[in-house]
Order: sequence, then structure tokens, then C-alpha cells
Amino acid sequence: MEKPDFHFPALLKKCKRGGPAVTHPKDAGLVIAYTGIGKDSVVMELGSGSGFMTIQLANIVKHVTTYEKRKEFQELAMQNVKKAGLTNVEFKLRDVFEGIDEKEVDLIFCDVAEPEKIINEMHNAIRIGGFMSAHCLNIEQAKALHLAAEKVFKEVFTLDCLVKDYDVREFGTRPKHFGLMHTAYMVFARKST
Amino acid sequence: MEKPDFHFPALLKKCKRGGPAVTHPKDAGLVIAYTGIGKDSVVMELGSGSGFMTIQLANIVKHVTTYEKRKEFQELAMQNVKKAGLTNVEFKLRDVFEGIDEKEVDLIFCDVAEPEKIINEMHNAIRIGGFMSAHCLNIEQAKALHLAAEKVFKEVFTLDCLVKDYDVREFGTRPKHFGLMHTAYMVFARKST
Amino acid sequence: MEKPDFHFPALLKKCKRGGPAVTHPKDAGLVIAYTGIGKDSVVMELGSGSGFMTIQLANIVKHVTTYEKRKEFQELAMQNVKKAGLTNVEFKLRDVFEGIDEKEVDLIFCDVAEPEKIINEMHNAIRIGGFMSAHCLNIEQAKALHLAAEKVFKEVFTLDCLVKDYDVREFGTRPKHFGLMHTAYMVFARKST
Amino acid sequence: MEKPDFHFPALLKKCKRGGPAVTHPKDAGLVIAYTGIGKDSVVMELGSGSGFMTIQLANIVKHVTTYEKRKEFQELAMQNVKKAGLTNVEFKLRDVFEGIDEKEVDLIFCDVAEPEKIINEMHNAIRIGGFMSAHCLNIEQAKALHLAAEKVFKEVFTLDCLVKDYDVREFGTRPKHFGLMHTAYMVFARKST
Repeated sequence: MEKPDFHFPALLKKCKRGGPAVTHPKDAGLVIAYTGIGKDSVVMELGSGSGFMTIQLANIVKHVTTYEKRKEFQELAMQNVKKAGLTNVEFKLRDVFEGIDEKEVDLIFCDVAEPEKIINEMHNAIRIGGFMSAHCLNIEQAKALHLAAEKVFKEVFTLDCLVKDYDVREFGTRPKHFGLMHTAYMVFARKST
Repeated sequence: MEKPDFHFPALLKKCKRGGPAVTHPKDAGLVIAYTGIGKDSVVMELGSGSGFMTIQLANIVKHVTTYEKRKEFQELAMQNVKKAGLTNVEFKLRDVFEGIDEKEVDLIFCDVAEPEKIINEMHNAIRIGGFMSAHCLNIEQAKALHLAAEKVFKEVFTLDCLVKDYDVREFGTRPKHFGLMHTAYMVFARKST
Repeated sequence: MEKPDFHFPALLKKCKRGGPAVTHPKDAGLVIAYTGIGKDSVVMELGSGSGFMTIQLANIVKHVTTYEKRKEFQELAMQNVKKAGLTNVEFKLRDVFEGIDEKEVDLIFCDVAEPEKIINEMHNAIRIGGFMSAHCLNIEQAKALHLAAEKVFKEVFTLDCLVKDYDVREFGTRPKHFGLMHTAYMVFARKST
Repeated sequence: MEKPDFHFPALLKKCKRGGPAVTHPKDAGLVIAYTGIGKDSVVMELGSGSGFMTIQLANIVKHVTTYEKRKEFQELAMQNVKKAGLTNVEFKLRDVFEGIDEKEVDLIFCDVAEPEKIINEMHNAIRIGGFMSAHCLNIEQAKALHLAAEKVFKEVFTLDCLVKDYDVREFGTRPKHFGLMHTAYMVFARKST
């Protein structure tokens, strides 16, 4: 059984994966496209992990601040961001549950456990019209966050995304038989007036 | 039966849709994430259509040049790009089959019929390591392009993407019963040394 | 937006749907195919509902006993089974939580709330090698049943099923744009020695 | 990467797979459920292959006649049907393109190349209200059959089916990361008055 291709772009191909699950490009793409962040945006990331999402965000936006409480993950993320040649990332060695300094950010991307516990802090840090988006490992985590978000945000939605790769040959075309069924549930919440 | 939410970001919400099918955010997200384009990238679009993809690209990258042969579509795209407040787009009223001026672009995004007929022209216009990506309305179109691309590009892949929205309530969580099953097949090809 | 076709077979087309969600053919098909029931099988159904699954089972197997606690649903199910011309169904007006008489059945199909509370009773009523299968309206219900089943059954699995319909035309083939995203989570458990 | 479970029922577990792709239970389930075949049905199979579908049909219906032109496949199918303990199957060593003897069958299940070439013969062999259903290895085959079927049958539809298995644990529930993305396209056609 052939391993599926995750379609990592060149800027991720040399990066080293550490312990935590990375945010796959297909899911990073949804975050970018659904929130409308662009080259003028300022974003925060809660949980640097291996830095894969840090890189995917920093490649697009003006500035990324990323919090990570574990030194070894932060160092891995720093190395990976450096390999990708990106210089618009600020790293903070910080437990997100100790508070968020930033204000008026366009997006908080969240990849930590129990993000629902800081839903008010996230809401406060986001500008009106901005988004919170989170990578959730299971439906229980997504549900807890979604329900907490509905109390302070106006537009909340939860989804997952399946990409099917095709075998295309002159004599016949069909999806590949085996593939990546699931990566994460993604929760989105927009701060409205 | 409730109409599904396509999750258009704010910069698309006021835009007017014309005749042609637009590139949905979920598919635009894949293009951005898989090709690794970012704020330093220069991209070309073949087929401005209503300008929805023009906007999603221009919001991310340094510069977009977009070709459209039909005056009424170009005008619609221009209006929509203006509404979105983007100024880094150059419009050319041009049939893509008459030739491509640009060189060394990071990405050509293609949303015209029979793009396989200009596969060499696209290949020539893309820098080494850059991508061609196309929005194909049916599998026959995707197949024709995929097979043509394999002759000149090194890494070619075709896929589609399904996003499932969830109903999340305290008493129960499940995908929404009805939704968007399909938008387009997406073909990607990378130019390697 | 065109309503999707659920592909009800002729024997369901004239049946009347009552309040409860029916078990769709695609899910009934999984129950039949994964459990291997056939024309010699004896099955039980917990929750007759509108009788749609009763009919789909009775059309295949030797005998179906079906429990329903609400008189109005039982009557609707009886009418529908009669319309379908099936005579191998025994109806019991009974709350499944008051006990199960049957023994050595090949399959218990379960479409009631909180089936995990009678997991031992279901296990006792099933022959060795036989199956319990359940139609669950949300992931919380499926999870509760799956975890309870793992304590008494040997092989337990939970899944859902997506059927995509295609528009097939000479000039182009693709999935229909809108469709049925989700019906139910299905839990299966096999009783082993 | 763990191999996905195809959920073969007990009656298939001991069967030997030969060269040809087998019809998976999830797809067999759709054939049974969408066509409404049951214990009184008479069905024909074109292409015995390894006999996996023969068994899944014979387990349900009154009688199956199955054609196969290759002696070695027929022998494998015969052995598998015998292992499954089924006695209601008639094997014919016959190329389906040489003609079909049977009349008034409830279902023809077709798993041969280029079935569109015998669409009239299939139509003639099916009773009014009965079905043709086919397992197609790629979209080109499905398209050719679908378009040919539309000329003689009244209700034609083409689909595929994705089953997602879940990891269910107390601390978290999500689909398994890798799985079976695709088996076959299925074409259905109903003969109406």
C-alpha cells in the first residue's frame, strides 16, 4: 500500500517533523481562504508545534507571533522557520493559558489542547471582523471549542476536509484506492460587531 | 433543504457573480497551500471570469496578471477587484490562445477551456520550481490537461476536495445532512529542472 | 438546488415516512453486506420507526421481529410492511428497555436512543458469530454504544458512508454539485466465542 | 500505515482472491439495497471473477446464474462458492458477448469490460422493473455504460461510495487517518415500461 502524498510545498519539504501532528496544507489552505488573511495581515499562533503552520502563515502574511510552552518544540519550530527563509516570525516561549499580549490581530490560529478555556482571551485579542481558527484532533475537542465560541463570537462553523488524489491514465481514470481520510476537525469563529 | 454555506471570506462577500463558475475558497486554498505562493510571488491567471480567484490570489501575492478574452467578464472582474480594494492586478483583454507575454512566474492559475492546448506556452512562462494549477469543470478536461502536463512538467497531480460542515449542539454532533458535494477537479503540475 | 435522489427501491417508494429518520438504503446495504445476513437469517429490530428498515430486512431474511413502544409508529410500520407485500414480520408493541425475548438471532438492528443501556441484553440475544448493528443520529450516541459494545463484543467498528451521484454527459462527467452529505453513524459489533 | 479493514463478512473471509478486483461489500450492499432484490429474486452475473459477488448475491437471492469465459476464474469462483456453502448458483463457462440465455431476471450484475456493447442483450434479459448494475474500474468505463444505458433504460444513475472508519476512544473520536478511498464506480439502470 503506497503512502499517500500530502502535497507539502517546497518550503515545508526540508522541515523536520517533531512529536506533534502538523497542520496539513489542505487545512492550512482552508484557514487562509475562509478567513481572507493576506499580505497585510497580522496573525497569532497558539502552539508553534513543529512550525509547519507557522511557516504556512508567515509565507502569506505580514507578521506572525507564535506561542509555545515547550522549549524543544520552540527550537524545532525556529529551525524550520529558518530553513524556510522566513524572518517575519516572533517566537514567545509562553504557555497560552498565562495570557495573550497581542491586540487587534486578524487571526488567531490555535493548535493547543483545551482552547475553549481561553475563548474570552482569544476574542479580546482579535479585531472586529477577524477570526479564530483551530486545528482539533478529535470531535470532542472541536465540539467543546465550537460551543464555547458560540457564546462570544457571532459566526462559528466546524468542518473537515477530504482531498482525493486521482490516477489519471490514457486508458482509465479513477481515485487512488488508498489515501488520507482524515487529518483534523477545523473550527472557525468570526468576531462581529 | 438549506443552501450550503460556501464560506466566502469578507473580501468576496460583496462581489457579483457573473456567468462562469467561480473558484471556491476551498479550492483556492489548495492552490495557495500546495504551490507555496506567498507575499513575494508573481502569478498569472488565465481566464479572469468574475474575478473571484483573481481576488483570492491578489490578496496573498505581490502581483497578478489576468487574461480574459470577453470584455463583459473583464469588466465584472475589474469591478469586483476594485470592491475588494486590491490594486496589484493587471488586466489584459486577451485570448490566452494568442500567446502569453509573462516570464518566470511562480504560478499560472488556469480556468479556461482546453488548457492542454497551451501546455508548452504555460511551461515556458513558469519559473523552475513554479506551478501550473487549473480549475477543471469535469473529469474529461482534467484528464486531457493532466496527460498533456505529464509530457512537459515533472510532478503532476489531480484531485478534488470535499468539505463537510457540522451541526454542533450540546446534545449531538454530526455532519449537516445536505451540502456541497463537488465544485471542480484541480490539476497541479510543477516545473522541475 | 435540486433535491438529491436517495435511491429508494420500488418496495419503499410507496411507503409513508413518519416522524423518525428512516434508515437509508445505502446504510441498510452496509448492514446487509457487512453482517452477511441472507435468506436463512433471523433478525430482530429494536425501534420499528416508519418500518423502512423493517422492510429492507424482511425482503432479504427469513424472519424479522420488530419492537416499537409507540403505537402510532407501529401502526405506520405495519401499513408500510403491508404495502411492501411482506408477511415475515412479527410486530411487538414493546419498550426495548423492558427486555428482549428472542434468542440466537443472527442480527439485532437497533434504532433507539441510548442502546448502550441494553448492550448486555442484546449480546445475550445474539448467536455466536452474529451481529449487533445500530443507526446512530450523532457521534455522541455512536461513541457511547461503541465503547459499551467493546466490553462485551469482540469485533466493534463504527463508520459512516457517503454516496456521490454523478452527472454523466457526452461532453463532461462530474459529481453532482449538491447532495446528501450524511445520514447516520453506523456501529457494528460481532459476537465471537 | 495500517491496512484498512474491508469488513468482509464471515462467508467471504475464507475465500481466495484471484486476479480480478472483487466487488467490495460496501458496493455489493448498494446493489442489494438500491435494486431491492430479495429472497425471491433471480439474478444473473456477467463475469464470475473470484466469485465474491456471486456469493454476496447468492446469499440473498433465490438463484444466481453466473457467466465466466476464463476457466481458471470459473474454477476459483466455484471453489469459493462451495466454501461459502451455497448451492443456488449455476456456473456457465461462456463469453457474455456470445449471448445471454436467461429471461425475466430481476437483476443483471455486470463486471466485465465494455458492457456497453451488450446493453440491448442485457435489457432484453431483464424483467420490467428490474435492474442492470455494473462495477466499473474507471470513470471512462462508467461513462460509456451510462450513456449506452440511457438509450434503452429509463432510470440510469452512476455513483461511488466512500466508507470512513472511526477510531473511537473515551478521550477522543475521529476518522482513522488512512483508509480505502475508492473501489469502483457503480452504474445502475432500471427497466421501466
